[in-house]
Amino acid sequence: MITSENNAKLKEMIKLQKNARHRKKEGLFVAEGIKLVQEAARYGKLRQVLIRESLWLDRWQEKPESEIAEEFSGENRRVGVDVVPDDLFDLAADTVTPQGILGMVDMPSYSQEEILNSPAGLYLLLDDLRDPGNLGTMIRTSEAAGVAGVIMSKGTVDLFNPKVVRATMGAIFRVPFLYVESLPETIRQMKQKNISVYGTILEESRVYDDPDYTKPSGIVVGNEANGISKEVRESLSGRIHIPMEGSVESLNAAVAAAIVLYEASRQRRKTD
Amino acid sequence: MITSENNAKLKEMIKLQKNARHRKKEGLFVAEGIKLVQEAARYGKLRQVLIRESLWLDRWQEKPESEIAEEFSGENRRVGVDVVPDDLFDLAADTVTPQGILGMVDMPSYSQEEILNSPAGLYLLLDDLRDPGNLGTMIRTSEAAGVAGVIMSKGTVDLFNPKVVRATMGAIFRVPFLYVESLPETIRQMKQKNISVYGTILEESRVYDDPDYTKPSGIVVGNEANGISKEVRESLSGRIHIPMEGSVESLNAAVAAAIVLYEASRQRRKTD
Repeated sequence: MITSENNAKLKEMIKLQKNARHRKKEGLFVAEGIKLVQEAARYGKLRQVLIRESLWLDRWQEKPESEIAEEFSGENRRVGVDVVPDDLFDLAADTVTPQGILGMVDMPSYSQEEILNSPAGLYLLLDDLRDPGNLGTMIRTSEAAGVAGVIMSKGTVDLFNPKVVRATMGAIFRVPFLYVESLPETIRQMKQKNISVYGTILEESRVYDDPDYTKPSGIVVGNEANGISKEVRESLSGRIHIPMEGSVESLNAAVAAAIVLYEASRQRRKTD
Repeated sequence: MITSENNAKLKEMIKLQKNARHRKKEGLFVAEGIKLVQEAARYGKLRQVLIRESLWLDRWQEKPESEIAEEFSGENRRVGVDVVPDDLFDLAADTVTPQGILGMVDMPSYSQEEILNSPAGLYLLLDDLRDPGNLGTMIRTSEAAGVAGVIMSKGTVDLFNPKVVRATMGAIFRVPFLYVESLPETIRQMKQKNISVYGTILEESRVYDDPDYTKPSGIVVGNEANGISKEVRESLSGRIHIPMEGSVESLNAAVAAAIVLYEASRQRRKTD
């Protein structure tokens, strides 16, 4: 039982929740809620768990912390478990209605080589996407659509932001991803590997279901307010747009990504 | 200039923001932000505007309220404009960073007859959808996909909730909608009019791109946690599912709606 707000584990959890730079430096992030913590354990990424006292009483009936730790530990990994009084626990929770369990988790990490070596890969590229909920939803949709990797410009919102982590619904542990220094440069490298990279741009563009996505393909979605940057536009293989009726100016970014990714997935199913 | 928190217009705006029952009783809701307020004016639905003092100084440079009212008024409709000191204005704003302008707006209203009389109509039906952001995004996507009407069970979140209104990005003024007492009963009436109604259900269902959506069609999306209710399942013309790779259990509800609606839109474009 942790009894002070100066406890090192509690302080570290709070810092990881609030500070993107600290997350990056430590290579750690926080998973909130029982499902996400269990997923982290399944993928061998879980290090430390904090349990809110009232959840502990309700779900574990005062079971000793060391015994609860067994549930989360794997063959080669010993996970620490500490119970925390509700008021102290809530200092570290990001949600308004805390789910009562926080896990300190190792960030997965992937190289550009392994991501781009997927045969006939389908990729999602994000150019300075800003909204955490959109990014999380896109990671979730990407797994479902069979995306081989999500490649993000360095100006894209932090994937390990608590809101993003929650919105992925666990897909964060399974979808390969990469932040790149220069998205146009990565797109040029992808084109050299015969991956066609299409950007969603309204002007002078083909309808999104026109390209042949059964070949290796990348889809670029831009910033919610400003779309795709000039440098990225100039590096593309082609431009696509989603037809819109009525007076709609644009679709939600996560919705646009889903429509194009599922068109690719549909074409791939049809040629199986 | 409004100078007291007891001002009737300010109190009414606050009550409309917070209280769904009051919105329904008065047939009024609140649009927040300059774009939405301008849209409300364009559709002749705007009654009263409150402007935050600092936006007034910045955008209108102390222009008299009566002159600003000209901007928002139409031929047959005189819109009231009042400037409100920042601290009082913020009592009525729903957003953390207030956009500085609030409009009191008449709710649009549609009958089941006019909605269902669209030739070859495409419909979105929602069975107890709970998340305001999802509903707003779906209304926006529906307009873009050419949906003739959004039909909601009475347990669906209030369309005029401030978060829903914002997420529609103005589509709330253009997409016909209806709350119905019994969704299964409405589905049976739709089927009598030769509209096929498909529900997104994982088990014992066809792939979502299999039905012919060039005919009059409805797509039912269920509650985020529990899916489509038993009574609605039993009233459907057919069941569809979106294939998912990996370990994803479900897609975000707004994403699922977008994928199916845009498949319908794609089929309709192809047969034009």
